[in-house]
Amino acid sequence: MNFKKIEGLIAAPFTPMKGDGSLNTGLIPDYVTKLKNDRLSGVFICGTTGEGMLMTSDERKEVAEKWIAEQTENFKVIVHVGSTSSKQSYELARHAQETGAYAVGCMGPVFLSPSTVEDLVDFCAEVASGARDLPFYYYHIPSVSGVSLSMVDFLQKAAPVIPNLAGIKFTHTNFMEMQQCLHLHYGKWDILSGFDEMLLAGLAFGAKGAVGSTFNFMAPLYEQIISDFNTGNITAARKNQYKSVKIIEILVKYHGAIVSGKTWMKSVGIDCGKCRYPLKNMTESEHESFIKEMEAAGFFDM
Amino acid sequence: MNFKKIEGLIAAPFTPMKGDGSLNTGLIPDYVTKLKNDRLSGVFICGTTGEGMLMTSDERKEVAEKWIAEQTENFKVIVHVGSTSSKQSYELARHAQETGAYAVGCMGPVFLSPSTVEDLVDFCAEVASGARDLPFYYYHIPSVSGVSLSMVDFLQKAAPVIPNLAGIKFTHTNFMEMQQCLHLHYGKWDILSGFDEMLLAGLAFGAKGAVGSTFNFMAPLYEQIISDFNTGNITAARKNQYKSVKIIEILVKYHGAIVSGKTWMKSVGIDCGKCRYPLKNMTESEHESFIKEMEAAGFFDM
Amino acid sequence: MNFKKIEGLIAAPFTPMKGDGSLNTGLIPDYVTKLKNDRLSGVFICGTTGEGMLMTSDERKEVAEKWIAEQTENFKVIVHVGSTSSKQSYELARHAQETGAYAVGCMGPVFLSPSTVEDLVDFCAEVASGARDLPFYYYHIPSVSGVSLSMVDFLQKAAPVIPNLAGIKFTHTNFMEMQQCLHLHYGKWDILSGFDEMLLAGLAFGAKGAVGSTFNFMAPLYEQIISDFNTGNITAARKNQYKSVKIIEILVKYHGAIVSGKTWMKSVGIDCGKCRYPLKNMTESEHESFIKEMEAAGFFDM
Amino acid sequence: MNFKKIEGLIAAPFTPMKGDGSLNTGLIPDYVTKLKNDRLSGVFICGTTGEGMLMTSDERKEVAEKWIAEQTENFKVIVHVGSTSSKQSYELARHAQETGAYAVGCMGPVFLSPSTVEDLVDFCAEVASGARDLPFYYYHIPSVSGVSLSMVDFLQKAAPVIPNLAGIKFTHTNFMEMQQCLHLHYGKWDILSGFDEMLLAGLAFGAKGAVGSTFNFMAPLYEQIISDFNTGNITAARKNQYKSVKIIEILVKYHGAIVSGKTWMKSVGIDCGKCRYPLKNMTESEHESFIKEMEAAGFFDM
Repeated sequence: MNFKKIEGLIAAPFTPMKGDGSLNTGLIPDYVTKLKNDRLSGVFICGTTGEGMLMTSDERKEVAEKWIAEQTENFKVIVHVGSTSSKQSYELARHAQETGAYAVGCMGPVFLSPSTVEDLVDFCAEVASGARDLPFYYYHIPSVSGVSLSMVDFLQKAAPVIPNLAGIKFTHTNFMEMQQCLHLHYGKWDILSGFDEMLLAGLAFGAKGAVGSTFNFMAPLYEQIISDFNTGNITAARKNQYKSVKIIEILVKYHGAIVSGKTWMKSVGIDCGKCRYPLKNMTESEHESFIKEMEAAGFFDM
Repeated sequence: MNFKKIEGLIAAPFTPMKGDGSLNTGLIPDYVTKLKNDRLSGVFICGTTGEGMLMTSDERKEVAEKWIAEQTENFKVIVHVGSTSSKQSYELARHAQETGAYAVGCMGPVFLSPSTVEDLVDFCAEVASGARDLPFYYYHIPSVSGVSLSMVDFLQKAAPVIPNLAGIKFTHTNFMEMQQCLHLHYGKWDILSGFDEMLLAGLAFGAKGAVGSTFNFMAPLYEQIISDFNTGNITAARKNQYKSVKIIEILVKYHGAIVSGKTWMKSVGIDCGKCRYPLKNMTESEHESFIKEMEAAGFFDM
Repeated sequence: MNFKKIEGLIAAPFTPMKGDGSLNTGLIPDYVTKLKNDRLSGVFICGTTGEGMLMTSDERKEVAEKWIAEQTENFKVIVHVGSTSSKQSYELARHAQETGAYAVGCMGPVFLSPSTVEDLVDFCAEVASGARDLPFYYYHIPSVSGVSLSMVDFLQKAAPVIPNLAGIKFTHTNFMEMQQCLHLHYGKWDILSGFDEMLLAGLAFGAKGAVGSTFNFMAPLYEQIISDFNTGNITAARKNQYKSVKIIEILVKYHGAIVSGKTWMKSVGIDCGKCRYPLKNMTESEHESFIKEMEAAGFFDM
Repeated sequence: MNFKKIEGLIAAPFTPMKGDGSLNTGLIPDYVTKLKNDRLSGVFICGTTGEGMLMTSDERKEVAEKWIAEQTENFKVIVHVGSTSSKQSYELARHAQETGAYAVGCMGPVFLSPSTVEDLVDFCAEVASGARDLPFYYYHIPSVSGVSLSMVDFLQKAAPVIPNLAGIKFTHTNFMEMQQCLHLHYGKWDILSGFDEMLLAGLAFGAKGAVGSTFNFMAPLYEQIISDFNTGNITAARKNQYKSVKIIEILVKYHGAIVSGKTWMKSVGIDCGKCRYPLKNMTESEHESFIKEMEAAGFFDM
């Protein structure tokens, strides 16, 4: 199958929860309004940032339905269906297709992780067959999944077996491999840049789309980076990229970008609540100093 | 709470499946008959060997019910409820308690794994609270879970927070730490030896119970090791331990002990079928030479 | 101290040896002539590519003397003095200064590697004090040294303790950290890009100098990348960067870039001989097909 | 060649230094007197504990000469010659043989570590050929060397290539592999147990000799463990093994067993001075509380 490549910014949204950790999906329409106002191209839901694997299967379906209800041609919903069970992921993929998602994505299995590309392809093929008509994106994020196999080999071996393979959400710093994936098979594959803080490298090597968690609250900064890059103003793009680095430094310091990013959403008007275990939420005093540091930096306002 | 410690051998059973990968729980009563004949003290189900996390939540419940139906005072059923979601694991623990399991066990979360003992305790506390009246065993297996935190710290920090904490299924080669756990709090904790091929070390350091996958088909060999160890015949125990090493060498060679062990079960009269992705089953020719090697070794017959 | 930053390409040369693995330093003048013709800014000798730690201390001094003899204002010699012994490295640093080197570099210790930045600083401070008047470059290459500590912290903590600290040879894919280092202390530090195959990312983030092993035989390709980048022709730069990726793919395939790069040097007129243990040289048939693949690719001719 | 296996305890001595980090080899005769009084079978010098690779080549030779001068038939000196350079290690091995050492040992190379057993054998073969008439021990310590290859394969592939191969100093917790090595080739190889805190496991699996750093100051405790083990008194052996664990807990807490063990030597009458970088010595206040904790534990007095 041939799919159109995704262009622009895809947010990896936080999953709105209440104080007690239960879902708060009623917030999703407002969340989407904000993202559409920020001109996002869509969302990649229930992934790492979305605490996908911290939810039950039923919860993941409920969340997917709410996001998909807001989908438009210019605001695509990609549903991450990865789990430790290919059967569960197959069911989530089928549900995504039945509910009308634009595409599905799947991380390599984090339990009994495959040690060969062939085994990874087998796992993904079963999952992808649950949503045969939708583009399938492999979610390459070795630092989280522990699955660290060659993506060039993966594309080559998956191509004949997964007819709906569209590309890779590439969240890895091996930019040699990103170049190889971008050039493979005459540039056929859609390789989405996955590290917000290195977006400029992704652009330099030819990526057209990107998925990220800080796009939830500072998309305009990244749109400016893309626009400056496209008009040859590298100096300006570099300067704004460093602004994103400064924000991400703060996020990392406060229990990492999922916890701190989710916490920050309240400041931009979308109260997404707290994170689930095994993530650790901030204490009150951490929260206070976090908000102060973020407000002092303030680059997301641009 | 104070729980009696487990003594003797606990099998980590394979989950019976059909050729197409669907469950075959009808086989469980026969499986139990064999294990009881081999004088096993019980089973630790739906763990690593049991492909627990490769099943959906509903499947895990079905499997648990079938094993628990065969439980007796001398044949205990411990239900592994670990998953990437503390909420799902809580529900599985509650189901285990309602269904009458002897105990529950839980691996550290394999996704967004905690980096501090406190965070691990928080995760486990939520899970354990689903089965408040049952002994709770933490399943320490860093090579599989990627959670490699101090078990001495864990016991110390979990003790006041998890009232039903009983001990640890200790599947790690750090025998200094095993000694520390065995001696902590005046020997209060039940530390189960987890590596079949090093059972003798566990015994030397004072472990009384063990959980293992090769107990499914060569329990008599290990019973002889324990008996020889207890009567001071180390030379004989060492000789039999090396026999288990020779079998495990073969298992490891043929796609690891889950795939090859499950395959071997048919040879001892319990056809457990195939493994699910991301595990890789043997090809026909691999299968043939595997059976030949196992039959040539033949130590499990003793 | 304030040192001028290095601009342009620094080769990490191979150490010329004979067939029996003994040194062949007589070749160095011709080697330098080639590099000067290719307009290199200098060399970083006795590092990873130069098999520095595979030589004895006396050999390292002999090699350093020969390179330094060819030094000019526009062709700088940086001597890597890293070893497992700070005392040995101190002596090599002192020798480098006495012999007239431009600068010294030092990798984090690969044996009993420090686990804190403070300990790394202590080690480097002793080494750097052997060459007090020369710029000192820390050589950050976690994939080889196993020393994977924060370079931002290192610069902050080393600055007051190592007066001759000049910067970092940054051979790591963490481009967030590279940006942080480039911006720290108002851009004071000289951060040299270390991965040839990702030079374009280094340029995008603001690096002005680069150290690499493929600069030994395809410097013109990289000079073109820099020139196209500087004139805003990213598309051309990207195309040439991908050419370097294609060559490096071949190098990696044939026992890695040290062995294959050294082998290739003969084809460009500088017969550098073989590598020492624990590196593994090519067999004759590997050599044949390697040369064929390289000639077919041929991008280094541009 | 056939060598007699080593029986009993081999200390891995600290290298005596002065306050300024220079060698203090004049202390070695007194050191030996203490070890002989403690009925040690010999020493394994210049290894991890002996800071071998933190010294220059000349220093290592000086240290070796002083220890070898005290050698007797019942007090063997094994010289560790491992380094990053096979050539330097070859020279150290030759020096050891010329000076009259009993045996040499060599760690896998910590820089550009081999990824195949064949490459490791090649490296070791060159080193071992420097001392053709002496037993050669491979020093397997993956946690320090980073070389984590199969020791069964190593023995099989090295046997025909290294005629003076005697066995392995096995400092690894994989006791399945230790059993395999002990049984390989009809028990031909001398496999020395390397973890003091798990000596009882080594004994259970059949090891006859052991190398350790805490043997420097509490050999009688370990001799009692061996004696109780040999007479079938496992309970007593286990109790004393746990005493060693309690001491090692303290050592680990104070900058690890090299730094704290070396510090402790002064308390038993042999002032070995301080450690070199990259090791970190204790502050004065750490030192005070360390001594207090050790004196309170006091198991080494037995």
